[in-house]
Amino acid sequence: MHRIERDLIGEKEIPADADYGIHTARADENFSVSSRTVHPELIKALAVVKRAAAEANLQLGFIDEARGKAIIQAAAEIAAGERKEQFIVDALQGGAGTSTNMNMNEVIANRAIEILGGQKGDYSRIHPINHVNLSQSTNDVYPTALRLAVLRLQRPLADACAALHGALREKEAQFDGVLKVGRTELQDAVPITLGQEFSAWAGAIARDRLRYLQAGERLRYVNLGGTAVGTGLNADRRYLLLVMERLRDLSGLDVLAMDDRVDGTQNADVFVEVSGLLKTNAASLVKLSSDLRLLSSGPRAGLAEIRIPPVQAGSTIMPGKVNPVMAEMLTQAAYDVMGRDLAVTLAAQAGQLELNAFLPLIADSLLPAMETLSRAMRLFAERCIRGITADEGRCLHHLQNSVSLIAALLPRLGYDQASALAKQAIAQNRSIRVVLLESGAFSERELDELLKPEELARPGLAKGRASS
Amino acid sequence: MHRIERDLIGEKEIPADADYGIHTARADENFSVSSRTVHPELIKALAVVKRAAAEANLQLGFIDEARGKAIIQAAAEIAAGERKEQFIVDALQGGAGTSTNMNMNEVIANRAIEILGGQKGDYSRIHPINHVNLSQSTNDVYPTALRLAVLRLQRPLADACAALHGALREKEAQFDGVLKVGRTELQDAVPITLGQEFSAWAGAIARDRLRYLQAGERLRYVNLGGTAVGTGLNADRRYLLLVMERLRDLSGLDVLAMDDRVDGTQNADVFVEVSGLLKTNAASLVKLSSDLRLLSSGPRAGLAEIRIPPVQAGSTIMPGKVNPVMAEMLTQAAYDVMGRDLAVTLAAQAGQLELNAFLPLIADSLLPAMETLSRAMRLFAERCIRGITADEGRCLHHLQNSVSLIAALLPRLGYDQASALAKQAIAQNRSIRVVLLESGAFSERELDELLKPEELARPGLAKGRASS
Amino acid sequence: MHRIERDLIGEKEIPADADYGIHTARADENFSVSSRTVHPELIKALAVVKRAAAEANLQLGFIDEARGKAIIQAAAEIAAGERKEQFIVDALQGGAGTSTNMNMNEVIANRAIEILGGQKGDYSRIHPINHVNLSQSTNDVYPTALRLAVLRLQRPLADACAALHGALREKEAQFDGVLKVGRTELQDAVPITLGQEFSAWAGAIARDRLRYLQAGERLRYVNLGGTAVGTGLNADRRYLLLVMERLRDLSGLDVLAMDDRVDGTQNADVFVEVSGLLKTNAASLVKLSSDLRLLSSGPRAGLAEIRIPPVQAGSTIMPGKVNPVMAEMLTQAAYDVMGRDLAVTLAAQAGQLELNAFLPLIADSLLPAMETLSRAMRLFAERCIRGITADEGRCLHHLQNSVSLIAALLPRLGYDQASALAKQAIAQNRSIRVVLLESGAFSERELDELLKPEELARPGLAKGRASS
Amino acid sequence: MHRIERDLIGEKEIPADADYGIHTARADENFSVSSRTVHPELIKALAVVKRAAAEANLQLGFIDEARGKAIIQAAAEIAAGERKEQFIVDALQGGAGTSTNMNMNEVIANRAIEILGGQKGDYSRIHPINHVNLSQSTNDVYPTALRLAVLRLQRPLADACAALHGALREKEAQFDGVLKVGRTELQDAVPITLGQEFSAWAGAIARDRLRYLQAGERLRYVNLGGTAVGTGLNADRRYLLLVMERLRDLSGLDVLAMDDRVDGTQNADVFVEVSGLLKTNAASLVKLSSDLRLLSSGPRAGLAEIRIPPVQAGSTIMPGKVNPVMAEMLTQAAYDVMGRDLAVTLAAQAGQLELNAFLPLIADSLLPAMETLSRAMRLFAERCIRGITADEGRCLHHLQNSVSLIAALLPRLGYDQASALAKQAIAQNRSIRVVLLESGAFSERELDELLKPEELARPGLAKGRASS
Repeated sequence: MHRIERDLIGEKEIPADADYGIHTARADENFSVSSRTVHPELIKALAVVKRAAAEANLQLGFIDEARGKAIIQAAAEIAAGERKEQFIVDALQGGAGTSTNMNMNEVIANRAIEILGGQKGDYSRIHPINHVNLSQSTNDVYPTALRLAVLRLQRPLADACAALHGALREKEAQFDGVLKVGRTELQDAVPITLGQEFSAWAGAIARDRLRYLQAGERLRYVNLGGTAVGTGLNADRRYLLLVMERLRDLSGLDVLAMDDRVDGTQNADVFVEVSGLLKTNAASLVKLSSDLRLLSSGPRAGLAEIRIPPVQAGSTIMPGKVNPVMAEMLTQAAYDVMGRDLAVTLAAQAGQLELNAFLPLIADSLLPAMETLSRAMRLFAERCIRGITADEGRCLHHLQNSVSLIAALLPRLGYDQASALAKQAIAQNRSIRVVLLESGAFSERELDELLKPEELARPGLAKGRASS
Repeated sequence: MHRIERDLIGEKEIPADADYGIHTARADENFSVSSRTVHPELIKALAVVKRAAAEANLQLGFIDEARGKAIIQAAAEIAAGERKEQFIVDALQGGAGTSTNMNMNEVIANRAIEILGGQKGDYSRIHPINHVNLSQSTNDVYPTALRLAVLRLQRPLADACAALHGALREKEAQFDGVLKVGRTELQDAVPITLGQEFSAWAGAIARDRLRYLQAGERLRYVNLGGTAVGTGLNADRRYLLLVMERLRDLSGLDVLAMDDRVDGTQNADVFVEVSGLLKTNAASLVKLSSDLRLLSSGPRAGLAEIRIPPVQAGSTIMPGKVNPVMAEMLTQAAYDVMGRDLAVTLAAQAGQLELNAFLPLIADSLLPAMETLSRAMRLFAERCIRGITADEGRCLHHLQNSVSLIAALLPRLGYDQASALAKQAIAQNRSIRVVLLESGAFSERELDELLKPEELARPGLAKGRASS
Repeated sequence: MHRIERDLIGEKEIPADADYGIHTARADENFSVSSRTVHPELIKALAVVKRAAAEANLQLGFIDEARGKAIIQAAAEIAAGERKEQFIVDALQGGAGTSTNMNMNEVIANRAIEILGGQKGDYSRIHPINHVNLSQSTNDVYPTALRLAVLRLQRPLADACAALHGALREKEAQFDGVLKVGRTELQDAVPITLGQEFSAWAGAIARDRLRYLQAGERLRYVNLGGTAVGTGLNADRRYLLLVMERLRDLSGLDVLAMDDRVDGTQNADVFVEVSGLLKTNAASLVKLSSDLRLLSSGPRAGLAEIRIPPVQAGSTIMPGKVNPVMAEMLTQAAYDVMGRDLAVTLAAQAGQLELNAFLPLIADSLLPAMETLSRAMRLFAERCIRGITADEGRCLHHLQNSVSLIAALLPRLGYDQASALAKQAIAQNRSIRVVLLESGAFSERELDELLKPEELARPGLAKGRASS
Repeated sequence: MHRIERDLIGEKEIPADADYGIHTARADENFSVSSRTVHPELIKALAVVKRAAAEANLQLGFIDEARGKAIIQAAAEIAAGERKEQFIVDALQGGAGTSTNMNMNEVIANRAIEILGGQKGDYSRIHPINHVNLSQSTNDVYPTALRLAVLRLQRPLADACAALHGALREKEAQFDGVLKVGRTELQDAVPITLGQEFSAWAGAIARDRLRYLQAGERLRYVNLGGTAVGTGLNADRRYLLLVMERLRDLSGLDVLAMDDRVDGTQNADVFVEVSGLLKTNAASLVKLSSDLRLLSSGPRAGLAEIRIPPVQAGSTIMPGKVNPVMAEMLTQAAYDVMGRDLAVTLAAQAGQLELNAFLPLIADSLLPAMETLSRAMRLFAERCIRGITADEGRCLHHLQNSVSLIAALLPRLGYDQASALAKQAIAQNRSIRVVLLESGAFSERELDELLKPEELARPGLAKGRASS
């Protein structure tokens, strides 16, 4: 069953029960390219913007009460997550978001017509543009909605950082006393504790959390009211104030109007900025994942200083094998985010004059990146970090076996002699302690005193270690 | 309703009607990170590999006939696209594809058990690993399936290039005689024809097509039979030959066994190579899209030398506006591909020793990129290129108005005099022809002869144009 | 003439007059890969760190006065830019900066020996490691110096933003009254002023400036005193305080010690963060450059609404051609920065355990990016923006010719009628004003009133424009 | 001492002894942005193109013999590497290479004037454009020269791949019999030989070599003769043939004229293609570097299965430490290349209409990338790969200690039983052999037979290992 709708180009059959209309249907045919639809957070945010506009229009008498209330109700329903399946346009749509805006206008119009007891498609009752889009343009509502959606996904990201950070700090405390060998450039270095390693990972994630929280500062300025090019054509001056007031109330976000809406209409730099923070976070997560996979390598022929909790069988051919799958998932999520950051950057730099036509790609790249990274950090914290255990014996064995302890005696021996002794120990595959004793430079008691591992993982230059 | 399954870690409830089993269910919980499942082409390709293995195992007597035939039938069904909804594991899974392989093993096993009249989950009838995965490891079947999937999407890509190329060549012929001003660095340059511009775009796409066709050369070597690390442990030597024979038959692709399956197991360079070709193609598409948007800018205050067919209304606030939405879609598809190329590269470079654990990210980035670019080129060819018309009058007006025509007289005037005359024409906003006549260097007839636009768009140095 | 030096590996001839020694010479041979040496800002910053360490060592009596003073003087000279040519090691050196640190240790030692009246290479006088590197490790001095160098290049970057911003704002004021057609998706849109366009570009650059200024917040925490892995082995606790005090004094920068120097030793996230801001800035510069090239396209067959000042002849074959070369330079600088941002990210994510071995690549990518972008913005402001003039007549002509003016009547006509009239005007190539008059919907006086361009570039909904 | 030169813009003082002239001097001032000059290979290639053009012009009588011969001699000298210091324009120049072309025209002109006994700057003797640039435009000579330069650096790249490949194959042979444990996802896996690992690395590099050799196929088509926009304006038809003949002779490269020079003038896809191959190569090098650093980690607390030759002291604080600096250099060279690949792609996609204005960025990114990667591979082969030794004892120890050997018994035990036994061995930290014996499933002799490591690193399913 179909109804017929018309536009500039001609007539088109629309499924009779569809809330969307001809503009959506044409866009659906034009852009069936990625198999992805628009991100639900963007749809919800756009519905909130639409509702704010309708409330302002109603209050200012630009629209009659019946229509106004029906539009408001319809927008509220969509903002609450209803009628998702009506938003069918491809995520990689051309037109700078016009098709998503029209999809929204049409769904709101038809739902509002329904509320008023009319027939779907009878736009004399409620017109998608004349009524639903009143005082608006795609070019102000769409960038505003995108900023709202990013702001909404930012808090969960910061919270996920906090969750991962908390899990790492717990382990820091737990492994406070686990002495082990440090490694620089994958070569044995001086002593450290396992707790200190967790602390260093936690430090980076703490900074990421702060970055996300601070990024809102610029994101919360929106160009709503700017209409087509930011100048505010067709937007009544009273509307400009009212719609922002309504948007703040309805969104629960502290969004503000840009002084220069022309700027806000055409520039996408805030998205590149946020995406850059995601990339920064991602880079630290790749390192964290890599470190954990190194330290848990084994179980026999690897470093094996920590054990990662098994969450699934690792191999179809090697029975009993347990792989660091959560860490591998994390790395992939992070690399995925880095790829998306490039897409965001490419889209932003390609803006032209009064508009960036590629905001749909920014939305399709950035919003999933934010969600993926949030989920990845949470899953990783819960299913990997929390279950990590230390093999203290192996840590200690590696430490005691290490030739690098001699670094502590550098001030006393001088670089050249110390180097010669270290070289000798390695070449002869003997203990550095034995080699040091043989050198006659130290008594056994002195060495015991000077090479206490727990001292060596702290700042300071013991008396006896300094040159005399 | 549930059934209970067990693994190394413990027991777990599985929905009674699920074809997948405990390994899949665990992976589903571990990796719910991207909201994307594994690409259907990879699932189908893996089913083909499974069927080939089962046929080889059956022929060699490694598995009994009842089991073998049931497994073969189940794999064939999945290869034909059935039971898609059973492949639930997230696309960004850790474990180098083990979870997708186990998902496949379990779905095949349960379907095969069903065929044999058994109860789902009764793996004594058919065991996901002992029977379905026999002679295999994730580490050979998954990389092999990924290569198959890429090979299968490569031909449509080459065909899409051909379709776009064909559309461009048609326009080249159509606009053969449309003389216009060339533009370098967006400044008026010497004459060209609109047909020549379409030819230049077509040339790049023709090279892209060739690149795709040649890329198969390295892609078609697979590591099937290498099992866990490429050495072929547990893979009978007769199986190695047989399974490749079966794979060629079943896939219809001319795949060959790598000499060095250890190489094929751990290296992902062929995917980076193909992805680099996608990026090359994408870069040319961005330029093509940009050029078309420039030439069709207007309708009044732009270059407006060509008209792009309207495929939908362009604006919610500017009635009658028609935007180059198909070209904008194309650019976004191309930028999306460039972002994915980075993800592929990141995943490939992070491989370690005998395996690349990040092949799932490569699959999740590369396969959609291939599909998106194919579709984008086809849609763009059909809905944009084919409908382009030229505004010949405007083209000619631009050309005749251009000061750059003087370039043709460079050999006769010398650079310095020609520059002075050009500068004068621009500063006084006068016709270069008039300025040239005034200079006394040419008679009117001479100029008519020397500045014939149709001559100027071809190689050659007319007698009268050379310095005397 | 050579002298002989020795290390763990053996003997080596060193040019007799070289300040560097055997470690530098080996590194020079090992890494002759990029033909680039280490960035001078990093060399200077490292010398400052060395001097701070020497002053602390001297004050604490770890080194005698003669040696201490000689080292301090030598470091001060290098920090002032002397002996640049002695820093010969390739920028892409392996070893996490050890070779640059040894290069510095050796040059300081030999210069200090010279000051004391000794022979170059006589390290019994002053030893590159035992004396110059005392209380230090590459792994704390190098990352600290890199942070100092970035901090020092950050202010010029912010200042360059300010310079460009200022130039744009001047033009905003100058072109305040120049009415013109706006363009979205390169299609004619509603009126705007040229001043508003400059304001929008300025807005993005103002945000970039702010971003740079804020980025110092995290950059100024350094790991100096952490020595090999951040634990502070061999660094006396008194030294930790003193060296930071000296560093603040000597650098003039408000640098602080990290609480967790293990974190600061191994994490490179602050560099990814800053690089992400550079990329954000770069994306806005690409758009600005592209917009200017569009608006100045012509002189005859382009938009030609502005004129870019000629700074050099444009073509070797087209006399009189003036190209937007400064804008093209800007785009290239911006793209160069984006490429470098990727290199920074790759290096950062590849850190392992207690150290990031790829800091030299970060230095070699980030520091030139900062300098290039600073210079590019300044040159562009001075040689392009400041000289831009408007073609007001052409701007007005484009505006009056535009069909998009009808957008202002949308509230009165409704979308469907307005679209039909616009379509008609375009198809018949007639003035929208004439078509509107013919439609009978408006009187001539009414239209004059409703379509005043200066009104249309401001917010608001004139009475007569609203639906009745 | 200065001379005065003039152009469209005005007069300018030029150093009296400079071979370059006013166009170069202006460009130098405009573009002092990157501190890098144009790559010498591009300068040399451009000089070859210039000479070819001069020879064709002379032969066709377009230029008199005295001038022609002087120009040819001057170009030949520059092509041989002379007067490098005269090419002062910044690498990131705007203008699509015009400034480099003018720099060349001026240097050739002044040198040729000198040859003829004239005064520098007396362009009546030989004019940089009228004579040196005759029959040419920047837009054909510059892209042609860039292709030549890439072709010339391609062979050394392929040769460097061959050198690295050869070194790896030598080690493959040397370590043929060194049995060790394989590792997948950094977890102990089934047996492999160290030789097989070298073979896998070699395989990837062999493919890279082939890729470089094949890439010439498209690169060798040049647009010489196309002049300003590819149409060949002012290029005599006889010149088109002659100049290519001369270019082939002079360059020694099998370059051919493109059928469609308009295509060759504006499209930069061949550079993206080659850059993508560099990136592919780079990704494999990162993996190789990472693997070597893993296997050589230690010397005590790492995998330590191989030893990398020491090429310099590793640490300023840890005496005797030897770091994998050559591998770290290789990774950085590879990451540098990846960043440059992005810059190449960005530049290519931003081409507009008849020209790509960003070719200078492509040159500045691609040519150094090619050189860096060539040198990095050679240095790495010579100073790292060739000196690698194996610790066979440790390899064998790791292997015998490994639980993964049980994979070989999978066909006999079945997955579930095998998993249980493996889990038990790991949990109890006991030998898998002992656990298997205790299970009663195997006699000692049987196990000896079934678990022969040398068998396990080869394809095949031993009789006794199959399920009975």
